Amino acid sequence: MPDSHRQVRQVFLQTIDHAADAQAPLQSLPQPYLLFLGDTVEEGFAKTAFGLRDWAPDKCTGEYALVGAAVSTGLPAMTPQEAQRAGARSLLIGVANSGGVLADNWLPALVEALEAGLDIVSGLHMRLSESPVLAATAERLGRRLIDVRHPPRDIQVGTGRKRSGKRLLTVGTDCALGKKYTALAVARAFADRGVSTDFRATGQTGIMIAGGGVPMDAVVSDFEAGAAEMLSPDAAPDHWDVIEGQGSLFHPAYAAVSMGLLHGSQPDCIIVCHHPGRTEMLGTPGYALPSVEEVIDLNLRIGSRTNAAIRCAGLSFNTAHLSAEQAHALMEAESQRLGLPVADPIRGGAAFDRLIDRCLA
Amino acid sequence: MPDSHRQVRQVFLQTIDHAADAQAPLQSLPQPYLLFLGDTVEEGFAKTAFGLRDWAPDKCTGEYALVGAAVSTGLPAMTPQEAQRAGARSLLIGVANSGGVLADNWLPALVEALEAGLDIVSGLHMRLSESPVLAATAERLGRRLIDVRHPPRDIQVGTGRKRSGKRLLTVGTDCALGKKYTALAVARAFADRGVSTDFRATGQTGIMIAGGGVPMDAVVSDFEAGAAEMLSPDAAPDHWDVIEGQGSLFHPAYAAVSMGLLHGSQPDCIIVCHHPGRTEMLGTPGYALPSVEEVIDLNLRIGSRTNAAIRCAGLSFNTAHLSAEQAHALMEAESQRLGLPVADPIRGGAAFDRLIDRCLA
Repeated sequence: MPDSHRQVRQVFLQTIDHAADAQAPLQSLPQPYLLFLGDTVEEGFAKTAFGLRDWAPDKCTGEYALVGAAVSTGLPAMTPQEAQRAGARSLLIGVANSGGVLADNWLPALVEALEAGLDIVSGLHMRLSESPVLAATAERLGRRLIDVRHPPRDIQVGTGRKRSGKRLLTVGTDCALGKKYTALAVARAFADRGVSTDFRATGQTGIMIAGGGVPMDAVVSDFEAGAAEMLSPDAAPDHWDVIEGQGSLFHPAYAAVSMGLLHGSQPDCIIVCHHPGRTEMLGTPGYALPSVEEVIDLNLRIGSRTNAAIRCAGLSFNTAHLSAEQAHALMEAESQRLGLPVADPIRGGAAFDRLIDRCLA
Repeated sequence: MPDSHRQVRQVFLQTIDHAADAQAPLQSLPQPYLLFLGDTVEEGFAKTAFGLRDWAPDKCTGEYALVGAAVSTGLPAMTPQEAQRAGARSLLIGVANSGGVLADNWLPALVEALEAGLDIVSGLHMRLSESPVLAATAERLGRRLIDVRHPPRDIQVGTGRKRSGKRLLTVGTDCALGKKYTALAVARAFADRGVSTDFRATGQTGIMIAGGGVPMDAVVSDFEAGAAEMLSPDAAPDHWDVIEGQGSLFHPAYAAVSMGLLHGSQPDCIIVCHHPGRTEMLGTPGYALPSVEEVIDLNLRIGSRTNAAIRCAGLSFNTAHLSAEQAHALMEAESQRLGLPVADPIRGGAAFDRLIDRCLA
């Protein structure tokens, strides 16, 4: 883990403590975790595992992958039995396929984990107990099957009523390119400047990290904006909720999630997250990535429906695949071109400070 | 019922026969219905009852309203016992409150219906069996509680893959102003011209009328576009699916539904539905209705993401509150101003013919 990651991790530790105070009590998830990678070959589908590694490494004992997997968190490879001996208390499903279903070829490994004495923690759409073999094995062994992707039961439809306090939402040119990372890093930077702040989690990984939130993609469409309204309630005038974005208004499969979250969040400020060099939308061959200008423009246009004062504070670039020099030159050029701060929160530095300045301006 | 309504009703009868062939078999809903109006005071929340009256009057025995109700379908008022004697087989909940929940003060009337020998048919979000008193009463009496708002179990996430065949989607400046009526009337007009056509229902009333479809507002957000893709599958190149729209991209509570339906439908053609004179969005005080130009522009911009050839064929105005002369003058002026056909499908006539011409052009 580079130093920048280690610093950013501190964000999370402080952020969840703060969130745990402000929201419902932390679910008592059985930690530490063994991170399960299935047979995933594409990093974008393993973002839960990477998120846990980066933001909660002391809660991760190791990783467990099936034959054929082509991704790794870099944590020690362990069988469930080895992990249990090393102190793990649960196997956490760290991957998602398109649709969020439990793959049949994962089942033997999950049964093995239960038999090794681990509970299972999942953020998939499909409930673990929908698998008869998992349900029967867990019952026989007295193990727990924990699905974190349960929306609260009492969500109301949106009202559009303007709420007090300030809100920032991270939005994206695509899925899986840093909206959660950016929100966590911004929440930390706000807190460092003495600004009253809450990180608001909207996906399974964020909820696993923060211990609270609403899994926005699991909410019934009619209640999507209402769920976002509930996630960031009225607050003091100078309080900031920093809300983890989901999907992209330009994604042909997931734009409904982004739309409801944007309307319901009523953001005063958006940060557009982007992965330079990515040319095609994740999981939908033939769909070109939109330009950042298009993404800024459409988000401001739609967001202005529920908050006329919405503005774009700048851009967050995921530059993990570039050298420091390449990343700096690219972000500087894009900042000049767009007239907005452009920063990589993982790299931090003066550019990130300028982005935070602009958020709070 | 004016003649225009009677004509339009014929659409429905032919359309459902056609839809029943093309889709899953008609659910055997117990007909005819007693239409239940609760204590509703706003017509917009009684659109299920009005839709059934207008499109399936021979399947409606009468109406039943609670004290305090301020709307009526014009059908004979009956108690459940009177309706049962007149041949009704079920009480159909013809109203929705904001959120689609079963109101506590409706329960005595619903129990009365079960005791009178009627089943209950509901399109609310909340399942009838979630009410312990209804569940117990229905079980004791051997009556059925039927919820039509169940999405299919096998919905996949969207792919964005372009499908064969042609599609038309009705969209709106707001909710509850004629998107279903317009789609049914357009499907009929297409069929009258010998065009191969299916009406695709997306809401509880349309499904009750058509006997098939997907209740789009009850679908989990992550699957919204995928559900719309499933609703209008690949078809012959000259076949038209005419898809019932939902909500509005400008509605602060329901835009997520409209967004997923627009992306997944991949319409070649939209018709913008509008209620002239309405100034405020339904159920969200303080939100002004957008202009029709804004609605055309945003729908074309977002729809072009999954179908670059999308175009607006014209506008459908709900002019029930205007005289024939007023309506004609207004639609003529708007047609001149916008350079598009503007028609009221309930009134029909040359303007509606021009709208259909433009759809098929």
